[in-house]
Amino acid sequence: MPNISRTGKIMPASPIRKLVPFSEKAKQEGVKVYHLNIGQPDIHTPEHALAVLKEYKGKVVEYCHSAGFESYRRALAKQYAGMGINFNYKQIMVTFGGSEGLIYVLMSTMDPGDEIIIPEPYYTNYNSYATMAGAKVVPIQSSFEDGFALPPISEFEKKITSKTRAILISNPNNPTGYLYSKEELLQIKDLALKYDLYIIADEVYRDFCYDGSTHYSMMQIEGLEQNTILIDSTSKRYSECGIRVGFVITKNQEVLDTLMKFAQARLSPPYFGQLVGMASIDTPESYFQEVREEYVKRRNCLINGLNKIPGVSSPMPKGAFYTIARLPIDDSEIFCRWMLETFRYENQTVMMAPAAGFYATPGLGKNEVRLAYVINTDDLKKALKCLEEGLKAYPGNTYNK
Amino acid sequence: MPNISRTGKIMPASPIRKLVPFSEKAKQEGVKVYHLNIGQPDIHTPEHALAVLKEYKGKVVEYCHSAGFESYRRALAKQYAGMGINFNYKQIMVTFGGSEGLIYVLMSTMDPGDEIIIPEPYYTNYNSYATMAGAKVVPIQSSFEDGFALPPISEFEKKITSKTRAILISNPNNPTGYLYSKEELLQIKDLALKYDLYIIADEVYRDFCYDGSTHYSMMQIEGLEQNTILIDSTSKRYSECGIRVGFVITKNQEVLDTLMKFAQARLSPPYFGQLVGMASIDTPESYFQEVREEYVKRRNCLINGLNKIPGVSSPMPKGAFYTIARLPIDDSEIFCRWMLETFRYENQTVMMAPAAGFYATPGLGKNEVRLAYVINTDDLKKALKCLEEGLKAYPGNTYNK
Repeated sequence: MPNISRTGKIMPASPIRKLVPFSEKAKQEGVKVYHLNIGQPDIHTPEHALAVLKEYKGKVVEYCHSAGFESYRRALAKQYAGMGINFNYKQIMVTFGGSEGLIYVLMSTMDPGDEIIIPEPYYTNYNSYATMAGAKVVPIQSSFEDGFALPPISEFEKKITSKTRAILISNPNNPTGYLYSKEELLQIKDLALKYDLYIIADEVYRDFCYDGSTHYSMMQIEGLEQNTILIDSTSKRYSECGIRVGFVITKNQEVLDTLMKFAQARLSPPYFGQLVGMASIDTPESYFQEVREEYVKRRNCLINGLNKIPGVSSPMPKGAFYTIARLPIDDSEIFCRWMLETFRYENQTVMMAPAAGFYATPGLGKNEVRLAYVINTDDLKKALKCLEEGLKAYPGNTYNK
Repeated sequence: MPNISRTGKIMPASPIRKLVPFSEKAKQEGVKVYHLNIGQPDIHTPEHALAVLKEYKGKVVEYCHSAGFESYRRALAKQYAGMGINFNYKQIMVTFGGSEGLIYVLMSTMDPGDEIIIPEPYYTNYNSYATMAGAKVVPIQSSFEDGFALPPISEFEKKITSKTRAILISNPNNPTGYLYSKEELLQIKDLALKYDLYIIADEVYRDFCYDGSTHYSMMQIEGLEQNTILIDSTSKRYSECGIRVGFVITKNQEVLDTLMKFAQARLSPPYFGQLVGMASIDTPESYFQEVREEYVKRRNCLINGLNKIPGVSSPMPKGAFYTIARLPIDDSEIFCRWMLETFRYENQTVMMAPAAGFYATPGLGKNEVRLAYVINTDDLKKALKCLEEGLKAYPGNTYNK
């Protein structure tokens, strides 16, 4: 048979999914598995947003404009203006989630062999999107000890070559929960202007900032109009991951024109997803306040709980709903699998994402896991207890050894 | 600013859309424009399929399985078995329309520089998908005089090189409306086995076959289990283009495994599109009969009308809802633009797709247009009258010259 393509061969399989067969098996055995491994929130989608589906009266579900309904894009431009992010409706494109947006942004800006600098740990699917574009991810290590703050600009400069085309920043960050400050964004600005780089800002967790901290968007940094490409999404904002509606926003006309060619080739974003997304714009601020309060409770429960377990530590993230925790173990892939395969505490266990999958540099993150606080505090407490007991029982526990 | 990528630069813009500004301007001037240029049918989506949206009671619109709801895939496997196409539910993947399926199939099977043979004229977006995969389309000319039947296998063999990886067949064909016979599919089989090629069969118009003719699917040809990759879609079948639900079906496990890596990277197909698609499976045969009868009426009206216009000719297509017509002109791009910009008949005009955009070989199709019979027969008659009068008035008419 003809070979699978090189792209197909080097496309990374999701590192998290390797563990799925073990969690499935545990569940078949009647074990309660607490899922701290994935970012699927349990928060309700706003009811009024879903109600719009019941009102649909169309007779033919037609293709829509490849960049999304014009009415939706106009409403979005107004919504963002309310957040201090100004652009016109022709500068936003609706995509199949933030994922498709990232794929086409990389294909539009990166040639095979071109390099994109991303602070690690980073969202693993960035590797997949870069692979599709033939681009190379150049990681730059952010440090657990600093809570995963922006690495010094001098470290970025060391990595810049003639092939560097872009810097990709996830803010607030998945998987670390780190929220970049305005000062850090300004440092990135200087770098981008000095070396003529695109800044791809993945801000899909922008609504999840805690402790009164403010989210600064890369789009709010002046003087970067030609450099900044914003990726955003309805998925986490309104807990509607399944509608598959995300956005690319940029003022760079050449990038927009190029993105449109990709958008036209796949014809149209999803009709009903857009209907729900458009209705979601009217979600009252009280919804977000409640959601943030709930996440702060969960975060505090998880992080404080983690730091009480002997040998475990985690920074206190200011955004998103993830954290990277250090465990007193040598290899979190082995530990996470052992927790699913072997360990039971009162017939329960915990599923976590080994952090090595979020690093590009081999060897990094081996004693770390990514945890998502997307389950309620009662379950989080039970999950923490399982983890504590699991670590006690784990033959490979290195604490006090 | 950093350059646009090579892929971005060579991504073809839709040749049809070049004319859109001229049709928009005509409409702004109050001119009635008959759209024979696009494949957006006016047929109603089955009502019961849309009713499912009103019954949705979920609280959180979650990501679903990257290959699509398991329940949907199981129902689809059963539906296809009823059409004589047998596979199990793990051999079908739900994609964002047939478009996304084709993109990931090409990325999974083609290396940069690899070649895919496609009979021309062909659906223009194939160029875009090939560009994304870095692949090269090698056209092989099908002939207007034969009604665009499969070119002789000897012609295919002349084009096969060490880089040939696949043959792509659209059946029934867009833009020609040609329906490949079982004998033609068997010829392709021999070729694929002899040269070890994938056969990518785009069968999204499979439900639109006329005059009692039967559609043979490439999946029904035995002995090609490892070669055939089927692309299908709900878009035209149920007139629900906007839900963005298509399928890739193959029994080749290596291809399936590779496709899954792409599917996982973009997380999930659309939730509500899948709900509508799943409900659409129960559409009664009477719906399709009515639709087919309507299209036969339209086809006969259009094709007979075309062949009555002096100097105009068109084959009688057996499937889909397109035809390629020859006009007594030198350059259909200039003529189509003239019809929109300059010509009015009783304040009406016609928009057509210049056929050159459907050919890869320069110079071919210059006196041809693609026409879609997706409007009702009354409007088709008016459109035909406009075309006839337009040709009479056109300074570049070559008939009898």
